[in-house]
Amino acid sequence: MFGDPSYPTYQVFLALGAAALLTGLAMAPFISFMKSGGIGQQIRADGPQQHLIKQGTPTMGGVVLLGGVLVSVALFAQWSPQLILAIIATYATALVGLLDDIESVAHKRSLGLTPSQKMIGLVVISTAFCLAAVNICGVSPVVSFPGGFGLDLGILTTTLTLGGATISIPWIYLVFVFFLFAGLSNAVNLTDGLDGLAGGSVLVVMGALAMVSFMSDLFDLAVFAGAIAGACIGFLWHNCHPASIFMGDTGSLALGAALAALAVLTKTEITSLIMGGLFIIEALSVIIQVISFKSTGKRVFLMSPIHHHFEHKGWKETKVVIRFWIVSAAFAALGFVLFFQLVR
Amino acid sequence: MFGDPSYPTYQVFLALGAAALLTGLAMAPFISFMKSGGIGQQIRADGPQQHLIKQGTPTMGGVVLLGGVLVSVALFAQWSPQLILAIIATYATALVGLLDDIESVAHKRSLGLTPSQKMIGLVVISTAFCLAAVNICGVSPVVSFPGGFGLDLGILTTTLTLGGATISIPWIYLVFVFFLFAGLSNAVNLTDGLDGLAGGSVLVVMGALAMVSFMSDLFDLAVFAGAIAGACIGFLWHNCHPASIFMGDTGSLALGAALAALAVLTKTEITSLIMGGLFIIEALSVIIQVISFKSTGKRVFLMSPIHHHFEHKGWKETKVVIRFWIVSAAFAALGFVLFFQLVR
Repeated sequence: MFGDPSYPTYQVFLALGAAALLTGLAMAPFISFMKSGGIGQQIRADGPQQHLIKQGTPTMGGVVLLGGVLVSVALFAQWSPQLILAIIATYATALVGLLDDIESVAHKRSLGLTPSQKMIGLVVISTAFCLAAVNICGVSPVVSFPGGFGLDLGILTTTLTLGGATISIPWIYLVFVFFLFAGLSNAVNLTDGLDGLAGGSVLVVMGALAMVSFMSDLFDLAVFAGAIAGACIGFLWHNCHPASIFMGDTGSLALGAALAALAVLTKTEITSLIMGGLFIIEALSVIIQVISFKSTGKRVFLMSPIHHHFEHKGWKETKVVIRFWIVSAAFAALGFVLFFQLVR
Repeated sequence: MFGDPSYPTYQVFLALGAAALLTGLAMAPFISFMKSGGIGQQIRADGPQQHLIKQGTPTMGGVVLLGGVLVSVALFAQWSPQLILAIIATYATALVGLLDDIESVAHKRSLGLTPSQKMIGLVVISTAFCLAAVNICGVSPVVSFPGGFGLDLGILTTTLTLGGATISIPWIYLVFVFFLFAGLSNAVNLTDGLDGLAGGSVLVVMGALAMVSFMSDLFDLAVFAGAIAGACIGFLWHNCHPASIFMGDTGSLALGAALAALAVLTKTEITSLIMGGLFIIEALSVIIQVISFKSTGKRVFLMSPIHHHFEHKGWKETKVVIRFWIVSAAFAALGFVLFFQLVR
C-alpha cells in the first residue's frame, strides 16, 4: 500500500487522482483497439434521430474505468472485509454487463442478454453480497432513514448452523437489497443515454459517498468511492460530447452495483437513494411512461428516459447533460446534508 | 443573518445553494429582457468561424451572477472587514467590466473600453484594496509560497501619519497586488471564450478557495467564495452549450478580481495562482503567441487563447470545455494539497 495510512484523507485524494490518470491514459489505446476491431455501440433505432450518428462509437469503456478503479484501490486502500465485498459485488455485476455488451456487439443488436438472464445474475450477486454483509461485516438488517429512525427488515430471519458457524438469513432484507442492486444498476444503465451523463452523475454521487464513508470511519470504502469518482473523471475526458467511447453495460451496471454496495455497507440505504435521485427519476420516467401507455394509451413524456424528453423539447444534448449534472449535484448535496445532520 | 453562525460549514453550504438558486432563477427573466432589448454579444470576426452563430447572444449575465452572490452573502455571512474589502474590490471591478460591456454593446464593437482605461481602473482598485488590506486587515506584505517560505515585498515601505493614524505604503507589494488583479482579471476574461469555460473553471477554483478560507478561519471569505461557486452553477445552467447568455466583462473581470482579493486576504497568493493555473495558461498562450509572432513572424498556436488552438486541432467546443474543466480541477486540487501540507 502506498501513501500514508495514518492520514486517510490523503489516501482518498491519491486514489481519486491516480484513478483519473490511469483511466484517462489507458482509455486512449483502448479506443484505438476497439476501433481497429470495428467493435462499436449499436444505437437504438427508435431513439432520437440525431443520435444515429453515434452508431459504431466504441463501447465497453467501463472495462478500462473499472480497471483504473481496481489498480488505484490496490495501491491506496487497506483490504477490509467491507472493501473486498464491495469490490466483488461491483466486479461480478460488471461481468454481467460485459456478457451483455459482448452479446450485443457480437450479434449487432442494441440489446444483449435477455432481461431475465440479467435478473438472475443480479439475484445471485445481491443475495451473496447481502448474506456476507450481514454475517461477516455485521451489517444490520435495519434500514436507516435520514431522520434517524430505522425500519427493521430482519423480522423474518432464519438462522442456520453449518459446522461451528451460525448464518443468519434475513429474508426481507435480502429482497430489499436485491431491489437496491437491481434498481440502481438498471437506473444508472438507463441514465447512460447521453454523452457524459452517467459518468458525470456517478462522479458527483461517488464524491458524496466518499465523504459519507469517510465520516462513518469506513476509510477503505472512502478510497473505493474516491477511486470511482476519479475514474469517472478520466472516463469523461474521452466520453464528453462528442463521445469517443461509451461505458457500456459493463460500466453502467457495475457503477449502479457499487452505489448499492456502498449504500448497504455504510448503512445509508435511503440517503443514498436521495443522493442518486437523478438515477431514480430516470428509472421512474421509464416506468411511468410504460404504465401510462399500457393503461391509458397516452404518453406522459415525449420520449423516455426523461433525458430524451428534454431533447425532444428542444434542449441540445450538451445542455441536457450539464443541467442533469447540476440536478444530480443538488440531490447529492441534499442527501449529504441529511446524513450530516445525523452524525454531527 | 440567516442560518447558524455557530456552525460555519453550514453557512458556506447555504450560501452556495442560495446563490445557485437565485442566479439560476433570476437569469431567465434577465435573458428575456436582454433579448427583447436586442442587446447581444459582438463576436470577434477573426475568431473560429463556427462561433459566428453566437452573434447576438445576450451578454452581461455577470450582473445577475454577481447579484446572486451579493444577496447570498448578505443572507449568510457576518460582515468582517476582510469580506467588505473583498466585496468592494470585486464589485468595483465589475463596474469597470460593465462600462466595457455597455460601450461594446452601444457601439456594436467587440471591444469596449480602451486597454489603458481598463488598466487605470484596475490600478485604482488594486491600490485602494492593497492599502486597506495592509492597514485595516493587517495583511502582511510578505508573499507566501507553497513551501512555507515567504518573500518580503514590504522592504520599501513608506509610513505616513495622518491625524492620529499611521498608514503604511508597501510600494513593491502594491505593484505585486496590481499585477495579481490585472493578471487574474484579464486571464479570466481571456478564458471566457467558449460556452461554460470560464464559469465552470471559476466554480472549481472558488470551491478550493472556499476550503482554503475556511481552514484559515476566515469563515466569511469562505461564505463569499462558496456563494461565487454557487452562482457559477446557476449561471452554467443557462451558459452551458449552446449558451443562452454570456457573463460579459462584467462577470469575467469581477471574478478575476475576486480571485485576486481572496488570494491576498487568505495569504495564498502563489498557491492561488497554482489553483487558477488554467487561467494563467490561457493568458500565457496569448502572450507567447504575440511575442513569437512579433519576434519571429511565426505562430506557436494555431490560434490564441489556447482553447481556440484545440478547436482548430479538431476538438469540438464541448470537448475543449469539459477537458479544460478537468485540467482546472487538477490545478485546484494541486494548489489545495500544497496549502493543506502547510496547515495540517
